[in-house]
Amino acid sequence: MSFIATPQTMHFPEVLPLQSGASLRDYHLAYETYGTLNADASNAVLVCHALNASHHVAGVYEGQDKSEGWWDNMIGPGKPVDTNRLFVIGVNNLGSCFGSTGPMHLHPDTGEVYGADFPVVTVEDWVNAQARLLERLGITQLAAVLGGSLGGMQALSWTLQYPERVRHAVVVASAPNLTAENIAFNEVARRAIVTDPDFHGGHFYRHGVVPKRGLRIARMIGHITYLSDDVMNEKFGRQLREGLDLKYSTQDIEFQIESYLRYQGDKFSEYFDANTYLLITRALDYFDPARGHGGDLTQALARATAKFLLISFTTDWRFSPRRSREIVKALLDNRRSVSYAEIDAPHGHDAFLLDDARYMNVMRSYFDSIAKELA
Amino acid sequence: MSFIATPQTMHFPEVLPLQSGASLRDYHLAYETYGTLNADASNAVLVCHALNASHHVAGVYEGQDKSEGWWDNMIGPGKPVDTNRLFVIGVNNLGSCFGSTGPMHLHPDTGEVYGADFPVVTVEDWVNAQARLLERLGITQLAAVLGGSLGGMQALSWTLQYPERVRHAVVVASAPNLTAENIAFNEVARRAIVTDPDFHGGHFYRHGVVPKRGLRIARMIGHITYLSDDVMNEKFGRQLREGLDLKYSTQDIEFQIESYLRYQGDKFSEYFDANTYLLITRALDYFDPARGHGGDLTQALARATAKFLLISFTTDWRFSPRRSREIVKALLDNRRSVSYAEIDAPHGHDAFLLDDARYMNVMRSYFDSIAKELA
Repeated sequence: MSFIATPQTMHFPEVLPLQSGASLRDYHLAYETYGTLNADASNAVLVCHALNASHHVAGVYEGQDKSEGWWDNMIGPGKPVDTNRLFVIGVNNLGSCFGSTGPMHLHPDTGEVYGADFPVVTVEDWVNAQARLLERLGITQLAAVLGGSLGGMQALSWTLQYPERVRHAVVVASAPNLTAENIAFNEVARRAIVTDPDFHGGHFYRHGVVPKRGLRIARMIGHITYLSDDVMNEKFGRQLREGLDLKYSTQDIEFQIESYLRYQGDKFSEYFDANTYLLITRALDYFDPARGHGGDLTQALARATAKFLLISFTTDWRFSPRRSREIVKALLDNRRSVSYAEIDAPHGHDAFLLDDARYMNVMRSYFDSIAKELA
Repeated sequence: MSFIATPQTMHFPEVLPLQSGASLRDYHLAYETYGTLNADASNAVLVCHALNASHHVAGVYEGQDKSEGWWDNMIGPGKPVDTNRLFVIGVNNLGSCFGSTGPMHLHPDTGEVYGADFPVVTVEDWVNAQARLLERLGITQLAAVLGGSLGGMQALSWTLQYPERVRHAVVVASAPNLTAENIAFNEVARRAIVTDPDFHGGHFYRHGVVPKRGLRIARMIGHITYLSDDVMNEKFGRQLREGLDLKYSTQDIEFQIESYLRYQGDKFSEYFDANTYLLITRALDYFDPARGHGGDLTQALARATAKFLLISFTTDWRFSPRRSREIVKALLDNRRSVSYAEIDAPHGHDAFLLDDARYMNVMRSYFDSIAKELA
């Protein structure tokens, strides 16, 4: 049984300028904290989330079964990121659908739901918003910023946007930018959503409908890329859903893998916001710190002064170890302090959320050393 | 400039029993032949097609620009499969939308368009239909059966269903069955089609609409799996479609890869039949010769007596070299004659349709030796 977590909200009346040139004002950030900030506010760890996660990183909600945070196996009292010693903060990103201001909220200028008018937000914008939240919490420097996948991109961006405010960056199962194939998968998912007749150009709320067909397809595509071919074969293989006889149907479920994907798609379409899906996949597409440096990642990372831990997983084909090694190389080219672990795990991209003894040990020992620096 | 090809059609009034227990009658097969059948009908090569190809394998149609057959680089006078010496036959499979009887045709019992009522057809059914066509053409034994991808599955199945009628089987970029991941991609594509409101349960013809949204998504997913990550990065990378400035939009095209995929999807949705897409992906899912042998491929292939050439491509992640090696191993376990070439090509699954000197040379020398056996 985990500890009780309590979500909080902070209001920001001031304008947040965005990378696109647009801006947000009168926005809220939902966040949670675990552990206790020490006297000199030096033990803070910011956890950045990926596509469909939130500020609810660890703990459970009082009276709610199965309400564990998405990284509850990693973060908490006595866990690898030990909240007995560290003060951990989870923030829901702007544009999300889990509490922070997003497309489902009201535009302060018009009083109408933002919908498709919610401005495009980038990894850099999220980091700026997170930095303001930390200022309000009285944290001027993070002991560490930590994230997996898209969360890892935010951790990396922190070290470039606010180098003096980050002592350690832990970047798990991430990449310095998306490949053409990564963008391609995002684009198919977006087209499925946008061409769903229930999308109504992103203003489906006022029609009382949700583009569930598109969301289902988007989620099914996502799930395929989160898993490795090996783990799919092991979990599902060619197993039929019912009995041993084929039904010879193009539309009925025949194989277990079909049943699993349809279930995941249906579940997702019940709670996730379609505009949020577009925004978050676009933030992924756009992230590319080397872009302003003619594609030279070494030059781009020269600004970073933090110490780094990078972790990748051998069977992750979404953000393969090769992508993490690009970051490691660019940091080493800049003579930065870098630890790198390539974990031989069968679970594909999802491995960063799962229990694996070697992975947990690497994280535990790195965060132990961070905690020791505080003493 | 290639030679002129002439499509032909053969009518089959008799019943074709299908693997599902259903049957077809009064069906047509569209086919083409190139070269001349020799006196003892021993120089025939059957070419089996994959998902969106047809009986138009080689040559051009008179007066039609850009009408080259889909394997015109491989097959023709003086080409690796040399029609000066070999008599090559291309057949459009049942259920397709390019001439042979399929969902767009009339059900002989009802006089209505088949639509979703077209029976599920399998690789084995296609081979049975092809065998009947060959009987009509006076061919009792093939010098070779040849196919890539799903076409390779048909070539393999020929050696099991009609072992005595095949001297050589050439199986390119294929697999002994689909993995869970392969099925998963097919299932997402099918869901996109079936949940398109214009699908109308597969009877969209009578509504005067086509489920183009679903077809577009299906094709986009397909295209991603046909290409390698490397070739996508080389061809498109993170290149923007217009200029150097980002537009910061979730719906406008920003990257070249998006433009390419949308174009491919749009083009496909203009000519491909949605029910055919469902049928052909299901035929892929179902193919599994080891299924009746408790999953033992060696036992399954014991029936084959043909000589084999297998070819795979290093960057093909749809049907990876590992899958071809499974077939090679099972054949060797049975002490069959097998040649195997693993071509180091960057183009992914699509490589089997492209010019690559090593690939072409392997094919040429194998088919040369087949032609020499005739002399």
